[in-house]
Amino acid sequence: MAGSHNPVRWGMMSTARIGRKVWEAIRLSGNGVVAAVAGRDRGKVEAFIRDLQVGNGAFPETPRALGSYEELLEARDIDAVYVPLPTGIRPQWLIKAAEAGKHVVSEKPCAPSARELRRVLDACARSGVQFMDGVMFMHGARLARLREVLDDGLTVGALRRVSTHFSFAGDPEFFGGNIRLDPQLEPLGCLGDLGWYCIRFSLWAAKWQWPLAVTGRLLQSFQRVGATGAVPLRFSGELLYEGWSAGFTCSFDTALQQWAHVDGSLGGIRIDDFVVPATGEHAGFWTRGTPSFAADDLGDPHVNGQATRLYRHFAELVRSGRPDPLWPDIAWRTQVVMEACLRSAQSGGTPVPTTGPAG
Amino acid sequence: MAGSHNPVRWGMMSTARIGRKVWEAIRLSGNGVVAAVAGRDRGKVEAFIRDLQVGNGAFPETPRALGSYEELLEARDIDAVYVPLPTGIRPQWLIKAAEAGKHVVSEKPCAPSARELRRVLDACARSGVQFMDGVMFMHGARLARLREVLDDGLTVGALRRVSTHFSFAGDPEFFGGNIRLDPQLEPLGCLGDLGWYCIRFSLWAAKWQWPLAVTGRLLQSFQRVGATGAVPLRFSGELLYEGWSAGFTCSFDTALQQWAHVDGSLGGIRIDDFVVPATGEHAGFWTRGTPSFAADDLGDPHVNGQATRLYRHFAELVRSGRPDPLWPDIAWRTQVVMEACLRSAQSGGTPVPTTGPAG
Repeated sequence: MAGSHNPVRWGMMSTARIGRKVWEAIRLSGNGVVAAVAGRDRGKVEAFIRDLQVGNGAFPETPRALGSYEELLEARDIDAVYVPLPTGIRPQWLIKAAEAGKHVVSEKPCAPSARELRRVLDACARSGVQFMDGVMFMHGARLARLREVLDDGLTVGALRRVSTHFSFAGDPEFFGGNIRLDPQLEPLGCLGDLGWYCIRFSLWAAKWQWPLAVTGRLLQSFQRVGATGAVPLRFSGELLYEGWSAGFTCSFDTALQQWAHVDGSLGGIRIDDFVVPATGEHAGFWTRGTPSFAADDLGDPHVNGQATRLYRHFAELVRSGRPDPLWPDIAWRTQVVMEACLRSAQSGGTPVPTTGPAG
Repeated sequence: MAGSHNPVRWGMMSTARIGRKVWEAIRLSGNGVVAAVAGRDRGKVEAFIRDLQVGNGAFPETPRALGSYEELLEARDIDAVYVPLPTGIRPQWLIKAAEAGKHVVSEKPCAPSARELRRVLDACARSGVQFMDGVMFMHGARLARLREVLDDGLTVGALRRVSTHFSFAGDPEFFGGNIRLDPQLEPLGCLGDLGWYCIRFSLWAAKWQWPLAVTGRLLQSFQRVGATGAVPLRFSGELLYEGWSAGFTCSFDTALQQWAHVDGSLGGIRIDDFVVPATGEHAGFWTRGTPSFAADDLGDPHVNGQATRLYRHFAELVRSGRPDPLWPDIAWRTQVVMEACLRSAQSGGTPVPTTGPAG
């Protein structure tokens, strides 16, 4: 196991593009190393490692290439795993990882349903391992600064409305074959892939309080030719709180947008890029038209500081030996709220109460 | 009657603050004069005129002060009237004005209900007078430029989502006594006063097409101590179209915000001030973070160019002798859609179809 001074030894269950970003983030974290990469095709894994284990990108020891996920979970020299597998099969691997004593970073949405996520989180709790989802903006410097401003009582005042929109426009290749439109592997479509961030940001603004009720509307679904079942392509929803509300929209066929507004009794904040902040000029947020800079940049313009901070933060928790219950808890709340939005959409948009920790 | 070269002779049914803006707009319009101001208190009317009929603000002939609205409508030297009376009593005066052969500019919401607005518009049609509501942004230079950009097929592409938010935060005086919280005089509260602009902008984006259905949610209502009935204090809604949708929020207890986003398959536009554009630097809109300037300024920094254009445009229509059916039609659509949003809110947020011109 990782001691409090040894770097955390990571195993990656991915050779996808997102895996490159994670590799880089772990390299820059300063308290972790990629010790192994696993995939179903060992050749691809070897190529992935060969590609990244060069120059500044290299770890002191070349990560091992493993041809199966089971091998990774059996390895005694792996402390934590990164699990970006498709949502449809992710819970089973998260549970296996937890039962093997591995700490886990899970991509979002964490599971196809709250019921399945509950089993994952219970397994993590039983094994005493840290669970965290891969929402990077939770770890950015901007969010902490934003909290200060929201709490100052003067800039925004009493919260009235949070509005978020996260979208990108898939190209023909995306619509033809991308997994995110597969009703078996990614049944939550844009709601799980993009709405997760909107709901997470809204819950963050709520200081993790459960909404009284939520609503949802499936604005458009998408069914691939020959596929059984459809997935959400465009979705809107609302989280209803006492005294304020949060509205969101997400879409797979709208150009990249990631804007957020936090409007209150005294003023409003505008964020043009709440999910993946630009560096430099656009790193901040705007109050009354004035930028409040919170540069989110570790000095490497090619790497998102948020990702590095996530892996650094996670490794600190692993090395502390005390899993932080905040992270599984907020993943749980995000999943439950998301599912309630979907349930509302399935019943014509009527409000669905969210009944607190019991879900 | 106004000939095609004589200035249009305006009668104002208001000595309220908005009346000052209208006076100034008519003065700058270049094709109209305020010929009379009417109110229930002739002393107040005289003070209002005395206050404005000075220096550069003065008309060549001092407008007459009239102590009743009836007198104004009977006057043979009045071509058009501005009617900002409370919504609860506005339709009856709009009908009287139309029947007296006066062209009318009505404040918004035009009526408490679509049924009552129908009677107003029928009266205007019978008398052959122009009807227009007081939505100034319809006449700004920005909207025309925005249409060009939306239609260029490259900047935004196919429309996917229009998002608008219009709010201000009433002070204690507002909550204590302002007419906009009076359930008899202004039963539509923030929906009528602010949501009208959001719906109008969304319908404009739709090129006036009827939505397939709309939804609404009364997020918060407000009942004054001792009052019978409440009015919408915070409201959200959606207009559902084939292929896209428009969401909006409005509120009387959220700091002044008037933002809009127009997001499409290829890009998005952000407008920070879609209702009352700032002059200078902020007069434009933003595409991919880049400002597209459309200065809305007639050279007088104290006067909103939109208002001047509205009164100039209206007077042109009056002088042409051919009422333009567009203006009553878009007021009608706005009112019908607004009412459908309210009906949806009253039935738990389920979609309410909008059935086209017959309402």
